[in-house]
Amino acid sequence: MAKVAVGVDIGGTNLRFGLVDESGKILARKRLLTKGQEGPEKVLGRIRDGIAALIKTASESGHKVAGIGAGVPGIISHKDGVVRFSPNLPGWKDVALKSYIQREFGLPVVVENDANAYALGEAWQGAGRGARSLVCITLGTGVGGGIILGGKVWRGADGMAGEVGHITVNPAGPKCGCGNTGCLERYSSATAIVEMTMNALLKGKASSLANFKPGTLTSEAVDKAARSGDRLAVRVYKDAGKYLGIAIADLINLLNVEKVVIGGGMAGAWELFIGSLEAEVARRAFAIPAGRCGILPGTLGDDAGILGAAGLVVK
Amino acid sequence: MAKVAVGVDIGGTNLRFGLVDESGKILARKRLLTKGQEGPEKVLGRIRDGIAALIKTASESGHKVAGIGAGVPGIISHKDGVVRFSPNLPGWKDVALKSYIQREFGLPVVVENDANAYALGEAWQGAGRGARSLVCITLGTGVGGGIILGGKVWRGADGMAGEVGHITVNPAGPKCGCGNTGCLERYSSATAIVEMTMNALLKGKASSLANFKPGTLTSEAVDKAARSGDRLAVRVYKDAGKYLGIAIADLINLLNVEKVVIGGGMAGAWELFIGSLEAEVARRAFAIPAGRCGILPGTLGDDAGILGAAGLVVK
Repeated sequence: MAKVAVGVDIGGTNLRFGLVDESGKILARKRLLTKGQEGPEKVLGRIRDGIAALIKTASESGHKVAGIGAGVPGIISHKDGVVRFSPNLPGWKDVALKSYIQREFGLPVVVENDANAYALGEAWQGAGRGARSLVCITLGTGVGGGIILGGKVWRGADGMAGEVGHITVNPAGPKCGCGNTGCLERYSSATAIVEMTMNALLKGKASSLANFKPGTLTSEAVDKAARSGDRLAVRVYKDAGKYLGIAIADLINLLNVEKVVIGGGMAGAWELFIGSLEAEVARRAFAIPAGRCGILPGTLGDDAGILGAAGLVVK
Repeated sequence: MAKVAVGVDIGGTNLRFGLVDESGKILARKRLLTKGQEGPEKVLGRIRDGIAALIKTASESGHKVAGIGAGVPGIISHKDGVVRFSPNLPGWKDVALKSYIQREFGLPVVVENDANAYALGEAWQGAGRGARSLVCITLGTGVGGGIILGGKVWRGADGMAGEVGHITVNPAGPKCGCGNTGCLERYSSATAIVEMTMNALLKGKASSLANFKPGTLTSEAVDKAARSGDRLAVRVYKDAGKYLGIAIADLINLLNVEKVVIGGGMAGAWELFIGSLEAEVARRAFAIPAGRCGILPGTLGDDAGILGAAGLVVK
């Protein structure tokens, strides 16, 4: 019987499930709304339902489920699979996710941080394929990161490594939610795109976006304006690329990785920021490791997390 | 027969040799001048002489030499032990150091980058003892770095990882020899201490160092002035600590290592920079990994490189 795993990507909005075979093919999918505001018990129930549905699919199609992998936003205690805390899942404090799923299904379970799962997915089946070392950066509401060295996730002493979004790219920069100032996340996230644009608009900078009021502007609108040649919008994406380039040059000089993979929603604006990003890397990183390092857009989108989580069991 | 290794620390000025046992004790030492300007062949001859002397000592004292480890400044090709290039050893281009020593002595040989050897030494017998993950930063003429993760050196795809000195700590900062601007090395090396002080003096800043002319000032003089309460000198060391703190906060957020060990000549000025360094780490790094990470002065000094190199063979 062909071996498969269930990969679960637990997000603030959606729970995504995939039945993944050893070759990294997603044989079946399922999606449920997270409805995190209903609290951990309800969410755990939905996670169980999604897994159960795919296990049923597996047995109907003659596959043997080897185990379940789950990616969760937040701080994971890796030795026992407890979710210590999740900024995106209200009330998740010391939730014993691994033992819960294990009890429900009697199968091996691996719990991983979602950014690490994303990186593992891209490394296994996406833009990172073939690389033994890579950093995966996800640009969304915030900036996430996963570091893979020697083919394995580097989690650090407390499972908190990979916080690429909180590299200081400008020590005198704006305050970040983390308490630092000038974090990458303050320049190169979708949130930062909106804020940088809005700040310029409030200063009276000319732009086709001038009619947007605070709270109504989105990064997609800035993206669209930039593609129509709006100079302010173009400038904002260039700045986002520049600061991302500073952080990536740091990563290259520190880790000499084979690839940097950039995913997440904002990676869709690739052409708007890759020029200034690459110019900054060329200026700042050593030539040999910079020449080695491929900087690539992620190719898996929402599937990266599912594949990475499943791969922890079935790969 | 008790097993020992010869550890060699190849520097721009000195060649240091040590006979090291499995417990990390240095049983005998030898030092020769490098005289790098005489070219690679002469230096190789002196390396051979130093090793031969310690092998003789070993056999006289009834020890079995298990092999030879050598730390070299520069870019090493790890698979064949060739020194591709060394900024501190004139004419060293594609020098087959490993096969040369192997041929001379018929013993196993390991060649390692000197900053990595230093980090391995501190991890084995120094301030990093007990840590499975650490970053070792050496403050000297430049700023070097070695990264140990899971008990092993992380060398990167080209053996060029660990360039802590070339993290961008201020994107608008002064030009660095590497081509970048605002590298850590421009703020927190002995060279930078001198330059920052001299720049302030040339601007007419009041200081007990005012009589120093460009080219005569040393970081030791600035250190001494700071300890005597010279406000400019105090400020310069505080700034060096601040920028080092920015880089260390990046390392903590990225790698969540157990320890950061700071060695090299300038680490002797510890009390002059540790306050501003720790303040910056507290401001900029996440609380859990920052709380985990011990920031400590190296304890081995010039022995770190010898021990790290020998440990690659005998540990």
